[in-house]
Amino acid sequence: MRNPLLVPDLRELMRDGETDALRDFFGDLHPATVAEVLEDMEPEEADTVFALLEPRARAEVMSYLDGETQVRIVEAMPTPDAAELFHLMSHDERADLVNRLDDDRVDEILRHMRQAEREDIRRLASYEQGTAGAVMTTDYAELPPGITAREALDRLRHEAPDKETIYTSYVTDSNRRLVGFVTLKKLILARPSARIEEVMQRDLIVARVDEDQENVARQIGKYDLIAIPVVDAADTLLGIVTHDDAMDILREEQTEDILAFGGVVAGVEGEDTPYWQSRITVAVQRRIGWLLLLFFGGAITSFVMNRFSGITGRVNDPRVNLEVFIPLLIGTGGNAGSQTVSTIIRGLALGEIYRSDVIRVLIREWMTGLLLGALLGILGFFYMWLIVGKSHAFSAVIGLSILGICMWANTVGAMVPLLARRLGIDPALVSAPLISTLVDATGLIIYYTVAIFLLT
Amino acid sequence: MRNPLLVPDLRELMRDGETDALRDFFGDLHPATVAEVLEDMEPEEADTVFALLEPRARAEVMSYLDGETQVRIVEAMPTPDAAELFHLMSHDERADLVNRLDDDRVDEILRHMRQAEREDIRRLASYEQGTAGAVMTTDYAELPPGITAREALDRLRHEAPDKETIYTSYVTDSNRRLVGFVTLKKLILARPSARIEEVMQRDLIVARVDEDQENVARQIGKYDLIAIPVVDAADTLLGIVTHDDAMDILREEQTEDILAFGGVVAGVEGEDTPYWQSRITVAVQRRIGWLLLLFFGGAITSFVMNRFSGITGRVNDPRVNLEVFIPLLIGTGGNAGSQTVSTIIRGLALGEIYRSDVIRVLIREWMTGLLLGALLGILGFFYMWLIVGKSHAFSAVIGLSILGICMWANTVGAMVPLLARRLGIDPALVSAPLISTLVDATGLIIYYTVAIFLLT
Repeated sequence: MRNPLLVPDLRELMRDGETDALRDFFGDLHPATVAEVLEDMEPEEADTVFALLEPRARAEVMSYLDGETQVRIVEAMPTPDAAELFHLMSHDERADLVNRLDDDRVDEILRHMRQAEREDIRRLASYEQGTAGAVMTTDYAELPPGITAREALDRLRHEAPDKETIYTSYVTDSNRRLVGFVTLKKLILARPSARIEEVMQRDLIVARVDEDQENVARQIGKYDLIAIPVVDAADTLLGIVTHDDAMDILREEQTEDILAFGGVVAGVEGEDTPYWQSRITVAVQRRIGWLLLLFFGGAITSFVMNRFSGITGRVNDPRVNLEVFIPLLIGTGGNAGSQTVSTIIRGLALGEIYRSDVIRVLIREWMTGLLLGALLGILGFFYMWLIVGKSHAFSAVIGLSILGICMWANTVGAMVPLLARRLGIDPALVSAPLISTLVDATGLIIYYTVAIFLLT
Repeated sequence: MRNPLLVPDLRELMRDGETDALRDFFGDLHPATVAEVLEDMEPEEADTVFALLEPRARAEVMSYLDGETQVRIVEAMPTPDAAELFHLMSHDERADLVNRLDDDRVDEILRHMRQAEREDIRRLASYEQGTAGAVMTTDYAELPPGITAREALDRLRHEAPDKETIYTSYVTDSNRRLVGFVTLKKLILARPSARIEEVMQRDLIVARVDEDQENVARQIGKYDLIAIPVVDAADTLLGIVTHDDAMDILREEQTEDILAFGGVVAGVEGEDTPYWQSRITVAVQRRIGWLLLLFFGGAITSFVMNRFSGITGRVNDPRVNLEVFIPLLIGTGGNAGSQTVSTIIRGLALGEIYRSDVIRVLIREWMTGLLLGALLGILGFFYMWLIVGKSHAFSAVIGLSILGICMWANTVGAMVPLLARRLGIDPALVSAPLISTLVDATGLIIYYTVAIFLLT
């Protein structure tokens, strides 16, 4: 809830049917702010407000809404309105939306559109996720090399409202091969009678259509570009990727790196799964892989310890040698805690988790810990039982300790970044290293407490 | 070495005094590529090439060079040339450069410049690192509200070569208070006789001059801006931050987050310390803090284990109870390994470490591990000796094991991301979770091996 004060007033206006006042209110806001308010409202309220907006404003607001809300709004709209919205949306964003919508709904909407647009949408929607093709847009400004600067400016003036950017125009020959580019700055500085081929720059930096989106974003950053042209193997111009998309890609990659560092497997590249939208079972799926691998790592460590502990001169009685399993247990706890920390830090960084969400976050992470702990605990029980040949009671100590430690690690892993944020400290700066120390010491207390209850 | 094939050819041209050929060659390259080649050359070679470039090209290349090379080139230049370079550089970059140069050298250069520019440089250089003021530039386009669109376009055409961007112009009243903005697109679409105050937009998104640079970059990303205006408390326009600076800021923050996650304290915010430029003692300083804290955490864990191990029914003989110190040792190893991983991943992400650097990286990290291990090992020795009251031999086992584990953890922590990169896997995706498992198991072998040699 980013705009908690706005929503009650707006509800009153809606209840009283003050559509003019609502329209004025939203007309004055930046589209990004309108999108935030819509996401905070109940679905029917948001649909009502969206219907009040001007068609062009709708298209602008769409570009700031999250995928789930976009789909819901388009599903609820009359088909001709949806077709008009598609017509006005930027080409890359409508292609992404098409990939999220139901196929039948897409067919319905496309039937209301001109063939050229229909084909453009189908083609852009067909590129593989995570490539330049999937993030590029086709509403770029294109110029032939033979016209004059004055003619080019007239053309751009005419086309400007429908283009993503007119600050760089791409020059193509009669085969649509990219031969150069010219900035608007250069055009207005040029002699009006100069031909484009005289003023254009030929030192092109291009992206291939199947290139990884992260590379493309890095090129844009490296060369300080407003947009990068995307070509196929024959240098045919297919689209452009703009600087604001590059920033979104880098932000996404950044948060994926944080997840990866915590040992959480992110979704398919390019897929966005906000913190609250993915189900707990999905969170478990993305985390269990590394936890299992690290569990076996811990099991090997226990084996090594067991192998060597004879050398200390003590008779090796594994039945009571609780210490041998400590690396396994605190390793599992530390890893589960790191995963939670990275999940929470990502949610905070992307603005998906707010201050007021503390209780919801704790419940969610505690549940995740319960599921992960149950899975690993059962595994730990049978590992003890079958391989090492321990007693019932000893296997239960290991299984229950793993369960308790996972739940505890997830709680601490969620608390520390939230607490850091509340104290005004950057959560990324303190959380990861602190968590292992906190979970190590307290995990041992859980282990020994369980052991006291079951073994003595 | 990013352009290994270019440099030998260029050396030949330089040796033969083929200055025209060199000038042509560099004239055709993108300034970012020229900068890369210069960074790969020997200092005197780079200075020779830089002197061949046109003054405006020099200013462009400067903006892509790292801070160290910038300083070296300006130190080596004749003062009037340096003053001309300053005149042509973008205002934010020359202010950053001034902060890196020797004060006397700055005074010399500024004496060759006009007073207005001198004051601009001094003012921009005075803002606190990490704030909007420190990253903003003052070469923005400014328009009064009363002139017509045609007059505005004429003015921009005239000023364009000296401005960072003319795609957004900022409208200020007679007190220099920011009242609106107008995009170049809107200007060329407007009636030529329309007044700026009629066509300008008033829904301003601004940054305060003392705002954190990361916030500013996020605003630019959120609202898809080409630039954001920076104002003081009285709304006076002071400068702008552009989209390409925002991307640099986010990239820097991203890699700082990775370091933080690995438990390495980054430098002062906004300060750039490339992998190879910071000395090993600096690396040790940035890492020892967390390692010490986590060491004490491990010591507490040992204490807890010792406290509870009585309950297992066995007589507690700490003299031979090696297991009690395992969490301390493998915790230290895991933490040192994570720090190395995050340092290497950052270096790879920023393009500071190349494939051919494997041996240099290993030596460097091994040395860092030696220093860290020696510090912590001595601490571990005395901790055992004084607090826990162990024997000489037992204290030596702990101290030497910590030394060995730190060196080993640093080696593994450097190898894994480099190996992942070589296998075509994203180093961030595999390294952090793998490292703890690898270091845990092997660290134990080191510990028990040392114990066998000293205790039996």
